[in-house]
Amino acid sequence: MMEFFKNVDKIKFEGKDSMNPMAFKYYDADKIIAGKPMKEHMRFAMSYWHTLTGEGNDPFGTGTMERPWNELDGMEKAKLRADIGFELMSKLGIDYFCFHDLDIAPEGNNLKEKHENLDEMVSYIEGLMSKTGIKCLWGTTNAFTNKRFVHGASTSPNADVFAFAAAQVKKAMEITKRLGGENYVFWGGREGYETLLNTNTALELDNLGRFLKMAVDYKEKIGFTGQLLIEPKPKEPTKHQYDFDTATVISFLRKYKLEDHFKMNIEANHATLATHTFDHELNMARIEGMLGSIDANQGDALLGWDTDQFPTNIYDAVLAMIEVLRNGGLAPGGLNFDAKVRRGSFEMEDLFYSYIAGMDTFARGLIIADQILTEGVFDNFVKERYASYEDGIGAKIVNGEVGFEELEAYAMGLGEIENKSGRQEMLEGLLNQYIYR
Amino acid sequence: MMEFFKNVDKIKFEGKDSMNPMAFKYYDADKIIAGKPMKEHMRFAMSYWHTLTGEGNDPFGTGTMERPWNELDGMEKAKLRADIGFELMSKLGIDYFCFHDLDIAPEGNNLKEKHENLDEMVSYIEGLMSKTGIKCLWGTTNAFTNKRFVHGASTSPNADVFAFAAAQVKKAMEITKRLGGENYVFWGGREGYETLLNTNTALELDNLGRFLKMAVDYKEKIGFTGQLLIEPKPKEPTKHQYDFDTATVISFLRKYKLEDHFKMNIEANHATLATHTFDHELNMARIEGMLGSIDANQGDALLGWDTDQFPTNIYDAVLAMIEVLRNGGLAPGGLNFDAKVRRGSFEMEDLFYSYIAGMDTFARGLIIADQILTEGVFDNFVKERYASYEDGIGAKIVNGEVGFEELEAYAMGLGEIENKSGRQEMLEGLLNQYIYR
Amino acid sequence: MMEFFKNVDKIKFEGKDSMNPMAFKYYDADKIIAGKPMKEHMRFAMSYWHTLTGEGNDPFGTGTMERPWNELDGMEKAKLRADIGFELMSKLGIDYFCFHDLDIAPEGNNLKEKHENLDEMVSYIEGLMSKTGIKCLWGTTNAFTNKRFVHGASTSPNADVFAFAAAQVKKAMEITKRLGGENYVFWGGREGYETLLNTNTALELDNLGRFLKMAVDYKEKIGFTGQLLIEPKPKEPTKHQYDFDTATVISFLRKYKLEDHFKMNIEANHATLATHTFDHELNMARIEGMLGSIDANQGDALLGWDTDQFPTNIYDAVLAMIEVLRNGGLAPGGLNFDAKVRRGSFEMEDLFYSYIAGMDTFARGLIIADQILTEGVFDNFVKERYASYEDGIGAKIVNGEVGFEELEAYAMGLGEIENKSGRQEMLEGLLNQYIYR
Amino acid sequence: MMEFFKNVDKIKFEGKDSMNPMAFKYYDADKIIAGKPMKEHMRFAMSYWHTLTGEGNDPFGTGTMERPWNELDGMEKAKLRADIGFELMSKLGIDYFCFHDLDIAPEGNNLKEKHENLDEMVSYIEGLMSKTGIKCLWGTTNAFTNKRFVHGASTSPNADVFAFAAAQVKKAMEITKRLGGENYVFWGGREGYETLLNTNTALELDNLGRFLKMAVDYKEKIGFTGQLLIEPKPKEPTKHQYDFDTATVISFLRKYKLEDHFKMNIEANHATLATHTFDHELNMARIEGMLGSIDANQGDALLGWDTDQFPTNIYDAVLAMIEVLRNGGLAPGGLNFDAKVRRGSFEMEDLFYSYIAGMDTFARGLIIADQILTEGVFDNFVKERYASYEDGIGAKIVNGEVGFEELEAYAMGLGEIENKSGRQEMLEGLLNQYIYR
Repeated sequence: MMEFFKNVDKIKFEGKDSMNPMAFKYYDADKIIAGKPMKEHMRFAMSYWHTLTGEGNDPFGTGTMERPWNELDGMEKAKLRADIGFELMSKLGIDYFCFHDLDIAPEGNNLKEKHENLDEMVSYIEGLMSKTGIKCLWGTTNAFTNKRFVHGASTSPNADVFAFAAAQVKKAMEITKRLGGENYVFWGGREGYETLLNTNTALELDNLGRFLKMAVDYKEKIGFTGQLLIEPKPKEPTKHQYDFDTATVISFLRKYKLEDHFKMNIEANHATLATHTFDHELNMARIEGMLGSIDANQGDALLGWDTDQFPTNIYDAVLAMIEVLRNGGLAPGGLNFDAKVRRGSFEMEDLFYSYIAGMDTFARGLIIADQILTEGVFDNFVKERYASYEDGIGAKIVNGEVGFEELEAYAMGLGEIENKSGRQEMLEGLLNQYIYR
Repeated sequence: MMEFFKNVDKIKFEGKDSMNPMAFKYYDADKIIAGKPMKEHMRFAMSYWHTLTGEGNDPFGTGTMERPWNELDGMEKAKLRADIGFELMSKLGIDYFCFHDLDIAPEGNNLKEKHENLDEMVSYIEGLMSKTGIKCLWGTTNAFTNKRFVHGASTSPNADVFAFAAAQVKKAMEITKRLGGENYVFWGGREGYETLLNTNTALELDNLGRFLKMAVDYKEKIGFTGQLLIEPKPKEPTKHQYDFDTATVISFLRKYKLEDHFKMNIEANHATLATHTFDHELNMARIEGMLGSIDANQGDALLGWDTDQFPTNIYDAVLAMIEVLRNGGLAPGGLNFDAKVRRGSFEMEDLFYSYIAGMDTFARGLIIADQILTEGVFDNFVKERYASYEDGIGAKIVNGEVGFEELEAYAMGLGEIENKSGRQEMLEGLLNQYIYR
Repeated sequence: MMEFFKNVDKIKFEGKDSMNPMAFKYYDADKIIAGKPMKEHMRFAMSYWHTLTGEGNDPFGTGTMERPWNELDGMEKAKLRADIGFELMSKLGIDYFCFHDLDIAPEGNNLKEKHENLDEMVSYIEGLMSKTGIKCLWGTTNAFTNKRFVHGASTSPNADVFAFAAAQVKKAMEITKRLGGENYVFWGGREGYETLLNTNTALELDNLGRFLKMAVDYKEKIGFTGQLLIEPKPKEPTKHQYDFDTATVISFLRKYKLEDHFKMNIEANHATLATHTFDHELNMARIEGMLGSIDANQGDALLGWDTDQFPTNIYDAVLAMIEVLRNGGLAPGGLNFDAKVRRGSFEMEDLFYSYIAGMDTFARGLIIADQILTEGVFDNFVKERYASYEDGIGAKIVNGEVGFEELEAYAMGLGEIENKSGRQEMLEGLLNQYIYR
Repeated sequence: MMEFFKNVDKIKFEGKDSMNPMAFKYYDADKIIAGKPMKEHMRFAMSYWHTLTGEGNDPFGTGTMERPWNELDGMEKAKLRADIGFELMSKLGIDYFCFHDLDIAPEGNNLKEKHENLDEMVSYIEGLMSKTGIKCLWGTTNAFTNKRFVHGASTSPNADVFAFAAAQVKKAMEITKRLGGENYVFWGGREGYETLLNTNTALELDNLGRFLKMAVDYKEKIGFTGQLLIEPKPKEPTKHQYDFDTATVISFLRKYKLEDHFKMNIEANHATLATHTFDHELNMARIEGMLGSIDANQGDALLGWDTDQFPTNIYDAVLAMIEVLRNGGLAPGGLNFDAKVRRGSFEMEDLFYSYIAGMDTFARGLIIADQILTEGVFDNFVKERYASYEDGIGAKIVNGEVGFEELEAYAMGLGEIENKSGRQEMLEGLLNQYIYR
């Protein structure tokens, strides 16, 4: 493994006044926050997908990315990507990677070749892991890029495609296990539909349920102990993705009695595409006990597609880290940068700048979130706001001691009900104070 | 009961070539379609809410509606509204009405007065029902307009508000029963939240679950046999409404073990605000066995709020009626026009024009939907498209006879998988042919 | 030129009851509507871009399109595409094509090769035009796909890119002239910006002005008599495209004194991405005397990007054709299907089905629009609505005979002002009647 | 003038560590930034509209605001509002107010009474201004709330309405002059349309042009020296507002040769409703020399209407203040908080908290913007990025010395063009560092 970024040393923490673009200003990996090192809170992961295989093409243009592997092919390309990816992680101090099967190895001409390529690359990556100490956060399969998945994978109208996808997930789960992956992710890919004019949604959803049931069975069979995760996403690439948002996925899991086997992998930009906030989706998963892992990126609220930008919005980072802290952390999940550099940021060093920007944003978010929870100003406000449920009629409601009749009798005795201001602007001002004091 | 619209006779069906704006061109109430009269398919209902209490105000202006009750107050106003509403329904041939408690009677100065006003108006309306033969599709309560509900009703941080809302629903359910209502609707109103900075979502959702459980209990206690319905809605009036869409509501119901007691009341404009299509929401409810009733209106996809326009889009109407026919009809639910005339359509006769436009649109939608289902062209296409699940490996998948290992073995034997075109454009062209042939 | 679609004859008009998917149900090319044959109203054009070079890839997947040229390269590929394109147009009865330079010929290794390739393909296409009688509606250049345009073409921060783009447009204008193109189109491509943090908008806009001025000069120099057109578009591919909508483009043209040299090429889906309706953009261009040509397609209002679907919405088609008829037609512009088949509609015959669906939709739109204008019901309503400006104080306002003082004096004498209902629902019902009677 | 907020002293600057919600943490009015006191940069204004007349109603509920004038009527109410408004401004250290005519005085029963009420209130407010030293930033008229404006004001189909609106603007301009208003604002209100089915857009736009021409004439006649401003807004309350965004307004002004008489009053939430960013709209106005004044608030990008929230987003504030500084300040315009407290923030003290949050946000924005411009890191990056236009072929382009032919010859000699990364992520990371260092 040759050093590629010869001019870049390991990125150091230099503090908030450093003007060195190749330094962290907030992320100080070993600094103790809320009882443990920042890096243990974060469990940062590099997405193989955007970082090593993104080419910078868009619907109106070809790739722009200047990458040393652009001229290579096949396994040679796969290995150079891996080498450089592990060097990048090492220099950034990122402890985990995550991957689709097809990110790490070429597809080959058939399933057998694909499996062989994967096996070879898994060995190769094991070497890099062993040399660097970097671990696998999760694996997944890509059952959406190849044209065979044009109408979906496990929800394809074609049973052969279902079978092929099953074979892919089987293998991807096996290699994830082999790489010590702590989770395995299902992202819907093309599981959804375009128009009811040609679609049997009931069959497709049942098939999706069957597919996930098979995955649970196979996981148990091979003794894979990682957490299974589902990543909700609306609108892309099919108009009606079946995994629209957290609530939709949980409803589905409950219908097919799969809810004990899966947690959520929440992506920021998928939340906003579903017209939710990132913190809403995290919160909805958390209060159901289903917050598993995070795909950190950010969308552009004025654009209508998944822009997967590196996350730099401090508000989102603070609110997200509050949910993570309340969740008692993310492990065995982590915080994966499912983010791509802009098409105009095509130089290799933009990868460093982008990861630094993202990691610093979440680091700052963690510090502020911890201050907010430790100081308790918001929590006290909320506790006080709901105090009426702690005794009297409120406690009876919560304890199931009253019904409509008792409540009507109680309400009859009430005069004008007094409410208190929700103080949203005051709280937003206070949040700002935490952010930029 | 004086006749108000002296110049308007009962609206007649005159056929598609009539240029009389006060006639139906497609809705022919007693015409037999798919084995029963159009009116039995439709079960059209007038929404008391928009039709009789809408004033035409918007965030930038005061009311514009020229209504004979504008100068009246209290019970006198309530009675004139009822008189005119029943005359309107009679002349339009609408067989059902639906209402919020506060639509039919003034709120009074306290709960006791409200109940008295309601009782008096229920008697009055019973008289009108008896005279006209018009029935009650559903009742509901308005627990969102009064400022006491500023932070929600059953999800208010204030237990007194929860109690008050319980008293309201109790009474509303009682009067719905008294009026022979065939359903009772829960619409979230302000059940949702603005910001996590001041909100305990877990407690609020648990309280919402408790509230609905009490409603189920009380329904059983009083022997109300109507269907309970929940109407999903996103974004308005709170940023994060708890009943975002069908999937969210079903997930909630499953969590609180309430799924056997409720069905969905799907509103077209609420679907599109959630960035779904109307037919998607109907389909998702239907395949779960939970399609209960419809609020027919339409939104403006270029505007970001609930415009509640009278439905005139034929595509939506056809696709909706396909779902209704596949559902075996809507009864005991129906098709309520939860629609308001535009602020600029402020004359009384605009109510007639608007209902005629909406009823004709759905009538045409029913006729076309029936032709589509009867001729079977689309259904045959779909059946053929999924044929691979009827035998061979597909049947084994559906029957649970194979797992990942068998499927991998099968996939290994496959060559290049052949898919077939989804033919969406051809099908859309065919749909157009049904629509305007 | 070999016949490729051996099983497809020239598509015939068979009328609205035909169930033959390979026939027109409404488009009857020579039928006289409003004094001239349908085809002269329509001036339908095939977009070389989507039809012949679209591969069916999307951000989540590779190409799906089954095309006979998939295995070919270079000039051989270009010629087969041309052959098949002209056969397709001939069989569909489409009289025009339009193209980007890079659609018709491979880019080669440098500008000189590109020009040579273009010259060769222009000769080849001239042969096909001569054999088929098909004409060129417009040409344009593709200055956005190649990575050199990553930061824009005439608005690039790199002067070399400006120069290169100038060379491209020069050549594209020359070959458009040679092919007898009746128009030349400028579409902004990547003329826009992502963030003000790295952008000098004033310089970029001035450069865009300079570029278009050079184009006008060169057009005059070579005696190209076609109409210059600008195609507004928002959001894609840059977040802030400089040609957001019609108003933005006209403002720009006025600033740089270019307004006498350009008209608009209005695209339906670009209108809706700018949150306007298609008919709004057509109307805004028309009343400025700047409606030049149309890119007919349709977007998906629930998705946030340019889906460029084949147009099948009859409402849009009717409202568009009303604007076209009021404009006295589109010539020298036309109606280009800037539309792509869905990724799942990957078979060659889907191209026929899609064009048939689109052409029939606009044919039906023309017929209805003509009926509406001929019968005059809407026009009479509008004329009556604005009657107050035909005499009295209204006429004085229109004739510039009064100012604020006279109007205040007049207003002082007014009692309560009476307005009339805008009757929107009645008019929408009436429009429906025209559509599906 | 009685003191109303007896428990609130003048709000002081206490610095970033203060936890006193009734203190500024960043806004230090007299602190010198970029050569002048913060307050002179800001020219903060209170909007009479939202602050004193907002009731907290929304489409689903009645007013919630607890206001001491709730029980009052007519002039008594108007005077108490004025007293309290001026006390609020005094205590907040806000130097300007702005108003609609109908904000300050009751409408009365006719135009004459309205004028009399206005005259009396203007005298009353003059007294408060003289006592407090507070000045008038701008006046405007409300020609949209009253039902007579249901179809527009100067674009109404009813000439009487045009006349009435003219009388209103005449009077509003007179009282703005009398109050020493430094600007006069035109906001389109209901100037727009709902559907082309009933609208003559050409006449309506011509009438709007005529109306503004009359306003310019009358301004000159009475010697009003304030700046005329137009406030762009899309979508609300009409679907197609004629003043959609800055570009649309400028195009309109150029058409009617009014561009020398008007500048823009840019509102943040109107920018985002038009799917632009706030800084984009400011920039577009600034580079045209037309940035006049600012309505500071913020929208909710996940909601589709004008939420007019108090501005607390630091990113928006920094980017806005960069434009303001580059503009050489806003005078005679200012920064008006066109913002309303949330419906749930119904107590009087929420007004203080909200203004403090907004003023602190913009104060922090000013400080950061000044640092950014002073340190020049971004500016240097941009200068370098466009360096190719400073000499060689770039300078010839800028100086108009070359055309397509020279550029083609130049391009022929180019090898592969080298571009540089736009470094967006690095710059976003750097912006974050400025924000929270």
